[in-house]
Amino acid sequence: MTTTFLHDVAATVGSGAVLTGETAAAYCADKRGRYTGNALAVVFPSDTRQVAEVVKLCAANRIAIVPQGGNTSLCGGSVPLSEGRQIVLNLSRMKRIRAIDPVNYTMTVEAGCILASVREAAEQHNRLFPLELTATLDHCEIGGNLSTNAGGNGVLRYGNARDLVLGLEVVLPDGRIWNGLRSLRKDNSGYDLKQLFIGAEGTLGIITAAVLKLFPRPLSSATAVVAIADPAVGVRLLAHIRAICGDTLSAFELVSRSSLDIVLRHIPGTTEPFAKRHEYYLLIQSGDVLQRPLDDALRSAIQDFGAGILEHAVTTDVATAENWWQLRKNISDAQKRDGISIKHDISVPVSRVAEFIARADAAMHAAYPGVRIVTFGHMGDGNIHYNISMPDAMQNEIFIAQQEGAVNKLVYQVVRELGGSISAEHGLGQLKREIIREYKDPLELELMRNIKQTLDPQGLMNPGKVL
Amino acid sequence: MTTTFLHDVAATVGSGAVLTGETAAAYCADKRGRYTGNALAVVFPSDTRQVAEVVKLCAANRIAIVPQGGNTSLCGGSVPLSEGRQIVLNLSRMKRIRAIDPVNYTMTVEAGCILASVREAAEQHNRLFPLELTATLDHCEIGGNLSTNAGGNGVLRYGNARDLVLGLEVVLPDGRIWNGLRSLRKDNSGYDLKQLFIGAEGTLGIITAAVLKLFPRPLSSATAVVAIADPAVGVRLLAHIRAICGDTLSAFELVSRSSLDIVLRHIPGTTEPFAKRHEYYLLIQSGDVLQRPLDDALRSAIQDFGAGILEHAVTTDVATAENWWQLRKNISDAQKRDGISIKHDISVPVSRVAEFIARADAAMHAAYPGVRIVTFGHMGDGNIHYNISMPDAMQNEIFIAQQEGAVNKLVYQVVRELGGSISAEHGLGQLKREIIREYKDPLELELMRNIKQTLDPQGLMNPGKVL
Repeated sequence: MTTTFLHDVAATVGSGAVLTGETAAAYCADKRGRYTGNALAVVFPSDTRQVAEVVKLCAANRIAIVPQGGNTSLCGGSVPLSEGRQIVLNLSRMKRIRAIDPVNYTMTVEAGCILASVREAAEQHNRLFPLELTATLDHCEIGGNLSTNAGGNGVLRYGNARDLVLGLEVVLPDGRIWNGLRSLRKDNSGYDLKQLFIGAEGTLGIITAAVLKLFPRPLSSATAVVAIADPAVGVRLLAHIRAICGDTLSAFELVSRSSLDIVLRHIPGTTEPFAKRHEYYLLIQSGDVLQRPLDDALRSAIQDFGAGILEHAVTTDVATAENWWQLRKNISDAQKRDGISIKHDISVPVSRVAEFIARADAAMHAAYPGVRIVTFGHMGDGNIHYNISMPDAMQNEIFIAQQEGAVNKLVYQVVRELGGSISAEHGLGQLKREIIREYKDPLELELMRNIKQTLDPQGLMNPGKVL
Repeated sequence: MTTTFLHDVAATVGSGAVLTGETAAAYCADKRGRYTGNALAVVFPSDTRQVAEVVKLCAANRIAIVPQGGNTSLCGGSVPLSEGRQIVLNLSRMKRIRAIDPVNYTMTVEAGCILASVREAAEQHNRLFPLELTATLDHCEIGGNLSTNAGGNGVLRYGNARDLVLGLEVVLPDGRIWNGLRSLRKDNSGYDLKQLFIGAEGTLGIITAAVLKLFPRPLSSATAVVAIADPAVGVRLLAHIRAICGDTLSAFELVSRSSLDIVLRHIPGTTEPFAKRHEYYLLIQSGDVLQRPLDDALRSAIQDFGAGILEHAVTTDVATAENWWQLRKNISDAQKRDGISIKHDISVPVSRVAEFIARADAAMHAAYPGVRIVTFGHMGDGNIHYNISMPDAMQNEIFIAQQEGAVNKLVYQVVRELGGSISAEHGLGQLKREIIREYKDPLELELMRNIKQTLDPQGLMNPGKVL
């Protein structure tokens, strides 16, 4: 039966667009090598009609589907399980930009468009598509960005991926195509179905195209680096600057001493921002579409704040700003080179970020003396990446193998007490599918399962992910 | 059985909080007198627990529920049907502001809070809650605003009501309480359930409380009034100004000659903006949290635009600006005094607004010589209010009685051809429940019905509305 199925799939997409065996293996593992699965085949449809036909064949044969874009998931969301009858449906060939309407500030793109190319196409029309994921910009695809409701660097000003979508085209689990490619700013004519598919990690249907919101391109910017001893100063400074700089405030990032040390150690050409070493740094950016100097407003906002600022510097020079940003953007890369760690991607209300760090730090140091904590992230969104390891490499391997569950529990307990989320921007995938059941209201999980059952009664869409 | 049910309800909320008979009638009709229904009782719970208990009683007795806030619906969404066993569940007593967190830029409010009081509470903490519905600000309640995904004047800059929500508390159709009152900017831990209830017009559950996003308060503003002969100039000017003024652009409204005439006729103290009469006017506003003069940027953006601008004036004077705004804000009120008309609340892509007006006008004048068209609305959102009547009052009554369906058909056909929506911001309610079936993809309607069936299998939540 499988042979017939694969034959039918090949007849639909072309035999060159179906990989099996060894050539398929690269698409069955994630980039970090944490998750490896098996697939009957990796299928590369070239248009929405082909996606629909393949899904119909899968539905008829009860074969599960793992939708895949750039396969940059950090939680095993875009690779197949090791057991079960599954295909990987890779959308990378669907990379047409179907339309750009600069007057409507919208563009219509197919799921396989690389994020960087979406941004470039917008720029060619003097518009901004603001989603920016530093680490994966050149590899991740917009279909995956929307399916996972990606966050990244622009959220403080422009929102998450969900906020950047006006319409969707979706292939449903039975192979029917829902054309919801509206490009309207207002439409109150029924339930907003697109919201179900955004952030569902491919468990309800396959996003094949989207209408994205565009924005005016910023022409001016100012960047500040600020040294502080305590994240609590950062929380208060954020509220203060936001009230003064308003919409121009586009980034407010936290970098701990430990994060900076790793970057300085592993990334050539990076340097301390100040002569003196400090415990925490803030990277703050403002931008405007007007050609105007923004540094004075940012500088005086920082200077007016008063006690708690140890050192600060503000620039409108692009090269200087980029040097500072390298200290933030390279943290993930530097960590990879430094060794493994227990990683968290948590969020709390913005007002409680400092409390989270203080309480989680205290719990960690009490339970694991000598532990190294690498704290950084999007403070402006209440989203902190909080990564734990032991300084000694051998000791660290044993620590992670034996303590990952216990470390997670301590961190997540603080998150729970502060009304936060154990997955802020990376999603659940396989990684947090089990653990989320302990931290989410059972009623909410029940509603999620009911919706899943309604849209995908055969359970064929990305099984083993999310729920 | 009904007697026992009402007795149980009274035991839950207190007998003074249950109205029946004549005293209930005021809550069973809409403010415009278009829809009148009947209810077993109008019930006023004082907290979420009481809502849950009443809903449980309804579920057990198969009695339907019409959730009601300020009862300002323009489409019969918040009144009971004339037949059937229904109660009105009025949330006006639930008007506590549960929390304000200025550092997190959030506030937690109960469904019955009047919109104006929500805005005032935010202002007391030097924050802005940007939802602004001129006509009903002092009467509408936030629960209704969210249930209908209200639009209004701030959408261009701040989005619809949906975009202003971080978390919800909802009483489900079986009486269970879902506490989704998160105040997180990022949370990728499963399906975003709150999106289902926002804009569902009370057909999936009852929103009892919400966490709202707040913003810095604008301290500067500039306002322009611009005369043009053709809406197409407005569409191009909007794109031009948006690229120059960026986020400071907060309103871009269109007012036709006919709209202005009605206001000048019925609203004392209003005056022509220019000595000469023109066919169309634009009202444009920019705002900023910085104390800075915005008029130069707005003025030069208009002056740089070139041909098509007949006259323009720009001011930072609040009184002058308010005088101009009176010409826009009073259109609905002036229309009421002027007589009845066939009203439309449509949206198209912003880039196609002029095309909509030109094509709909041509169709109207061809079919109904002498017809009067009152065109105005949120051009910046692609949302036009397009109202049709005959100049002679007696002729008009006959026209509306005989031609409403035919007029709608002509207008909606143009909307359809331009990829628009026949309900931009008012919702479907009873008014467009039937007609939407002709303009929406059957697959989308099927998905909506499936979701309705999943969440409300007994069909007790606001029956006869939306679907």
